[in-house]
Amino acid sequence: MNITVLGCGRWGSFHAWYADHIGHTVTLWGRPGSQNLSRLKETRKNDYLTLPDAISLTDDLKEALTGADICIISISAQQLRSFTKNLREAGYDADLPFVLAMKGLEAGSGKRLTTVMEEELGKAVRTAVWVGPGHVQDFISGMPNCMVIASADDRLTHFLVDTFTSPLIRFYYGQDLLGIEIGAAAKNVVGIAAGMLDGAHMTALKGALMARGAHELSVLVSAMGGQAMTVYGLSHLGDYEATLFSPHSNNRRFGQDYIEGRPFSKLAEGVGTTEALLDLSAHYGVELPITSAVHSIIQEKKDPHDVLKNLFLRSTKSE
Amino acid sequence: MNITVLGCGRWGSFHAWYADHIGHTVTLWGRPGSQNLSRLKETRKNDYLTLPDAISLTDDLKEALTGADICIISISAQQLRSFTKNLREAGYDADLPFVLAMKGLEAGSGKRLTTVMEEELGKAVRTAVWVGPGHVQDFISGMPNCMVIASADDRLTHFLVDTFTSPLIRFYYGQDLLGIEIGAAAKNVVGIAAGMLDGAHMTALKGALMARGAHELSVLVSAMGGQAMTVYGLSHLGDYEATLFSPHSNNRRFGQDYIEGRPFSKLAEGVGTTEALLDLSAHYGVELPITSAVHSIIQEKKDPHDVLKNLFLRSTKSE
Repeated sequence: MNITVLGCGRWGSFHAWYADHIGHTVTLWGRPGSQNLSRLKETRKNDYLTLPDAISLTDDLKEALTGADICIISISAQQLRSFTKNLREAGYDADLPFVLAMKGLEAGSGKRLTTVMEEELGKAVRTAVWVGPGHVQDFISGMPNCMVIASADDRLTHFLVDTFTSPLIRFYYGQDLLGIEIGAAAKNVVGIAAGMLDGAHMTALKGALMARGAHELSVLVSAMGGQAMTVYGLSHLGDYEATLFSPHSNNRRFGQDYIEGRPFSKLAEGVGTTEALLDLSAHYGVELPITSAVHSIIQEKKDPHDVLKNLFLRSTKSE
Repeated sequence: MNITVLGCGRWGSFHAWYADHIGHTVTLWGRPGSQNLSRLKETRKNDYLTLPDAISLTDDLKEALTGADICIISISAQQLRSFTKNLREAGYDADLPFVLAMKGLEAGSGKRLTTVMEEELGKAVRTAVWVGPGHVQDFISGMPNCMVIASADDRLTHFLVDTFTSPLIRFYYGQDLLGIEIGAAAKNVVGIAAGMLDGAHMTALKGALMARGAHELSVLVSAMGGQAMTVYGLSHLGDYEATLFSPHSNNRRFGQDYIEGRPFSKLAEGVGTTEALLDLSAHYGVELPITSAVHSIIQEKKDPHDVLKNLFLRSTKSE
């Protein structure tokens, strides 16, 4: 099958590597002028992997989309809306399934990425999400994991799961697209909070963080019309090992660096998602104490030690 | 208040230290001939902490129980039934609340520890459990955490929470004693599985382990008449940081040592609990795939790499 991957960062290049690894014909696209793309063209390598020669590299979006059977998108979540314009201009087959491989919600609207796709490309656009645990470094070293593919169209979900499952990644069929998208995006916020606890020498509270973090998001998902238990599946709780504990996690690292006053090269994806979740919190009338705590530390510059201690240790509660 | 702690191992000595730390008058009891007790008597120290001089040390159970307002029990879960005979012989005030501070289920019967207490000491015995995350090493270093106290008697729960809560340990009122006891015990089994994944270089699957482990136990708790969501609270999921990720966790360590073929000084508490959970699995007709996997590796000597891979990666499923 012809698989096109749009975005050649850490995850995009992995998706190209993986699609090739399981036997597909792969094209990997990067923006014109992309440094990641230049480096891959020159060396076939980045910091994580080596791309086999069979993978075509291009910065021509029209060429990348022509003849594609499946298109995986792996760009920054906050850039998706503007990127859809590029997709429309380049043109694509009306049946082409798009698989969104990033985790986020639109800051400023709280919208899910599949909603952004529909709003910009029309109701008929075939979109799925590919989320769940796993680090590029681990996959490349051969460590297997389970992930989830979900869409509003069960047949599309089954087609994609059957196409992509392998001994390296075992896919689950996602049943609740809304809960999976919210949970997958929100785990980055919990990841930032985990890093903050590490930075504040309160690592032991990551246990309480897991229980309370998953809880507040399950209440939100339920209020939005999704299934509360989805958050406790692979897309959110199942991603906590990779996000809350792994040294590879950008969001955890960002939270720790923030508390320790170390410079960080760029905002973690979870920062934008924090804003989006607070939009949803207000809209649906659901309190999100952990998300609010992360927000108050980063945006309102509140004292992190006070905020984190208050979050878990202030009042005695039932459970 | 007069607090007596029975059992002077790592946790028992911590409970004595903590009760003193928050201002109570404390007696710590160890069995006659106990090496832990001898060492504490000679040096006031063990590998984890130093006991203030105000804490009385004794091996006389009758003396330890006389005048106690609250009695904390911290011995091996599998020894509780035989130990109740010592309690009966020594005698205690009929109103004395017992707080069970260990996590386990009776191997061979699958019975909860509060059930063992009732069967041996009568329905009127006032028993609570004190569970949840936290490592002795972290508490002694001043790292705060949240824990849970639960009993069948709400007034007792409130009395104990109010007595023991402090800036170091913030207690939650447990609402579902059955779910809390099962979850607290079972987290040791998930901890062994986590150590096995670490030992088999499949650490990344600890994410899936968290999601699937909590799920199978929530189904069991529900079948037993408890609340499925209790497992996702502090007593089980909230203890995953301490149990699945911390180098201090005995159960995680045991699982890793087992896979790596390293000698281990004694069986982890979770081994007995595995047997008890399989009793419950059979009795209530609930499949416990992770618990069964741990059992098949330890008791049936199945190949751990095969068992662990099959557990997570065999069949494609919905979620």
